[in-house]
Amino acid sequence: MKPETLERIRKFSDDREWDQFHTPENLAKSIVIEAAELLECFQWSREYDLQHVKEELADVIVYSQNMIDKLGLDVDEIVNMKMEQNEKKYPVEKAKGSAAKYDQL
Amino acid sequence: MKPETLERIRKFSDDREWDQFHTPENLAKSIVIEAAELLECFQWSREYDLQHVKEELADVIVYSQNMIDKLGLDVDEIVNMKMEQNEKKYPVEKAKGSAAKYDQL
Amino acid sequence: MKPETLERIRKFSDDREWDQFHTPENLAKSIVIEAAELLECFQWSREYDLQHVKEELADVIVYSQNMIDKLGLDVDEIVNMKMEQNEKKYPVEKAKGSAAKYDQL
Amino acid sequence: MKPETLERIRKFSDDREWDQFHTPENLAKSIVIEAAELLECFQWSREYDLQHVKEELADVIVYSQNMIDKLGLDVDEIVNMKMEQNEKKYPVEKAKGSAAKYDQL
Repeated sequence: MKPETLERIRKFSDDREWDQFHTPENLAKSIVIEAAELLECFQWSREYDLQHVKEELADVIVYSQNMIDKLGLDVDEIVNMKMEQNEKKYPVEKAKGSAAKYDQL
Repeated sequence: MKPETLERIRKFSDDREWDQFHTPENLAKSIVIEAAELLECFQWSREYDLQHVKEELADVIVYSQNMIDKLGLDVDEIVNMKMEQNEKKYPVEKAKGSAAKYDQL
Repeated sequence: MKPETLERIRKFSDDREWDQFHTPENLAKSIVIEAAELLECFQWSREYDLQHVKEELADVIVYSQNMIDKLGLDVDEIVNMKMEQNEKKYPVEKAKGSAAKYDQL
Repeated sequence: MKPETLERIRKFSDDREWDQFHTPENLAKSIVIEAAELLECFQWSREYDLQHVKEELADVIVYSQNMIDKLGLDVDEIVNMKMEQNEKKYPVEKAKGSAAKYDQL
């Protein structure tokens, strides 16, 4: 995300004094609520309304960014830490072309 | 996210030929599944294990990025589009200090 | 559910003194967490492991029953109240054979 | 649930020919979507609107019943099977008064 997009997300909450509601717990609830609205775009069919998907996906991303900010995290640090775990859990030679969970590979 | 982090996310799926599983619908399911695992860090208490939170939040972010890639979206474009909607739905003078939904402001 | 099954659910929590954790908010979190585990049975495919589905569906039902008990609700009363709303929102002649949301019928 | 309530749930779908949409996968999505709407009642606060909670909880229960019907399950059988697992995973002497997960008891 560009610095000005990040800035816009932060300013939006600051202007409304919403930091008081943005506890880590409430943000975790908010992320799953928005993720379920994203899933609702696919509730009865694989077909979807792209504009609606974009809006709900953006909501997930904005609340995820709120949580990163709230906890003072670095997105590259946490993603790289997790990708390192994933790379070990799913070795290419075992996981290639398979959707099985790591404990069933 | 830095270009090399993005690249690592994409290479991870490419190497494992997982693009076939990454339909928009399956990614929407995956985002909500990981979001619920993040919420699980707060299931019985507001206290949390930071390392666990980082891992689950990273999973949400990685699947969100997978969906952005799958749909050929631009993260700044969709976030700005949504923030514009949010700024209109929640005018500062009405929303300041309130957690009410826009239709109850 | 048979009275003895209900009784078993209640005794399980009573014996462990878990009522203190079963606030309505925590139960709502728990229901969505278990619902996402149920969804995980279908994450990458429509095929599923029936035993796993049974276990996760049972978890959703048990936490839903915990919430009914916690709030002192009557399951028949709330389901009938909601079915009445649904019957009005989705008139047979409009909704027959359609998966559209009520505001798009 | 009383037989007439169950009957009402089944007739509602039958009348609208919705069985075609009620695949196990779609019902799993629907349960998590409704569970997240229930959670939304508690998004920013532990305070809640009881009527709203009743409606969303009823939705979770109705879709859970739809899944039970779809898979030809017996609610008492699956709940008792799961309670037996839970009773073993959480022995009273270890779990009493603790919200820890079974693998951390």
